[in-house]
Amino acid sequence: MTIRIGIMGYGNLGRGVECAIKQNPDMELAAVFTRRDPKNVRILTEDAKVYHADEAKHMTDKIDVLILCGGSATDLPVQTPEYAKYFTVVDSFDTHARIPEHFAAVDAAAKEAGNVAVISAGWDPGMFSLNRLYGNALLPEGNDYTFWGKGVSQGHSDAIRRIAGVKKYTIPVESALEAVRNGENPALTTRQKHTRECFVVLEEGADAAKVEEEIKTMPNYFADYDTTVHFISEEELKANHSGIPHGGFVLRSGVTGWNKENKHIIEFSLKLDSNPEFTSSVLIAYARAAHRLANEGASGCKTVF
Amino acid sequence: MTIRIGIMGYGNLGRGVECAIKQNPDMELAAVFTRRDPKNVRILTEDAKVYHADEAKHMTDKIDVLILCGGSATDLPVQTPEYAKYFTVVDSFDTHARIPEHFAAVDAAAKEAGNVAVISAGWDPGMFSLNRLYGNALLPEGNDYTFWGKGVSQGHSDAIRRIAGVKKYTIPVESALEAVRNGENPALTTRQKHTRECFVVLEEGADAAKVEEEIKTMPNYFADYDTTVHFISEEELKANHSGIPHGGFVLRSGVTGWNKENKHIIEFSLKLDSNPEFTSSVLIAYARAAHRLANEGASGCKTVF
Repeated sequence: MTIRIGIMGYGNLGRGVECAIKQNPDMELAAVFTRRDPKNVRILTEDAKVYHADEAKHMTDKIDVLILCGGSATDLPVQTPEYAKYFTVVDSFDTHARIPEHFAAVDAAAKEAGNVAVISAGWDPGMFSLNRLYGNALLPEGNDYTFWGKGVSQGHSDAIRRIAGVKKYTIPVESALEAVRNGENPALTTRQKHTRECFVVLEEGADAAKVEEEIKTMPNYFADYDTTVHFISEEELKANHSGIPHGGFVLRSGVTGWNKENKHIIEFSLKLDSNPEFTSSVLIAYARAAHRLANEGASGCKTVF
Repeated sequence: MTIRIGIMGYGNLGRGVECAIKQNPDMELAAVFTRRDPKNVRILTEDAKVYHADEAKHMTDKIDVLILCGGSATDLPVQTPEYAKYFTVVDSFDTHARIPEHFAAVDAAAKEAGNVAVISAGWDPGMFSLNRLYGNALLPEGNDYTFWGKGVSQGHSDAIRRIAGVKKYTIPVESALEAVRNGENPALTTRQKHTRECFVVLEEGADAAKVEEEIKTMPNYFADYDTTVHFISEEELKANHSGIPHGGFVLRSGVTGWNKENKHIIEFSLKLDSNPEFTSSVLIAYARAAHRLANEGASGCKTVF
């Protein structure tokens, strides 16, 4: 029997989940839920329907797993505990520091209802976390390194978007990555690990030098990085910078041997054309796992661990 | 309470397990077993003792997990089912094609005795298998690629050793690896994926040209590869080729999107100074897992899955 998937929220992530369902013959799309007017939301799957979010809780008999595709800042902290009362749910909550708090809220709701809820299923947290766990279990004496990019980071783009039409990339510093791969165990600052590159479309009459200065000194976002700013045309932005690529590297550099004489490097990396579509693929894989756990009678909140 | 580990077989792998125990404070070495005369086997740990292999089965109350450090060709097919009758056991059986057969034999013995047996815990099979499994779950439409090296392969060295004093390396072809990383999904033959390099110490009066020809045309081992043969002195062999490095790359190259328009690459790689010591570290991590499973009342044969 196919696993019937519901999608809550139809942005980049929701659309990615819809695409991923098509690639997995044991799954089918049962419904898409939106807070917008369902009449105005067009989806790709011909034989599936769009409903208002409020209708979801009346459709528990039509859906095996509800995948929550909202944002981590405000949507998921409310939605995941709420829908865990009614469904087996999966989310990609990615605010690392607040995972314990989110876990506790979801766990309480899921346990009370006897449902399974998988949180933080994505690539970081998610696949990267798994690889850090394995790395530490296999090489207890060593260092962890994470590099992100080359990729577009959504949160940061929001900040720079306030300045002008812009695309911003985080790029790992190749020499730093090589030093880690060589087992040198360097201590790396933020500036030494990544550079940033911005492609900016200036508004008519804007002062390029002033915009560049504003970007480079923006606290939290760019001030800690070596940032390069390129000014390009709107056409070029659309042609060459319309994708949402991302990726990164997780490395464990450790030693073994009676006198710690042998070095070992474990490296896991992702190179993704579409960050939301890959995250969606992880969500779908864990939706299958959540469904199996639910069928085995499990309940409560789970992570990828 | 610390986990008391027994080591069966004290070669490179057994010594690696001994070193790994030292790095894990929740473990202690309870005993080393050997088929040689225990008086002639010196171990590194001061407060542990060496016993003859025949004594193991009388020491079930002194050992929580017995790690089997024999070879996959003839030792483990006999040892793992035998010792699974008495102990929680872990092995690194690595003859891929014969794993189902080994699993069945070990499973029968372990279930009858109510013990847990983890087989094929290493890096390939083991960590590489796990990454192939995750890659296929996350990107159902795609291709798998495995490259080995740069490293010394034990089995093949046995074959070439019959010719002369020799060290042989398998080296991944960088251009093939790059093509996979670029999402080109190439179809690669054995010859296109790896080259081989041999460092040979000629015996007094041996014919270099004849030895080179013999190596390059050796069926199964070198005939399918572009092989380079270097003749070096015994001193150079000892100075520069005494280690047992290895490693490799597992890649999953897949697509997502409604029209499969986005490419994704998942890459896992290992760069190991000491193949047996890293394998030992995997064995130790799974010894902990096996002990936990045994305490939870599980029984039968398990793999890293």
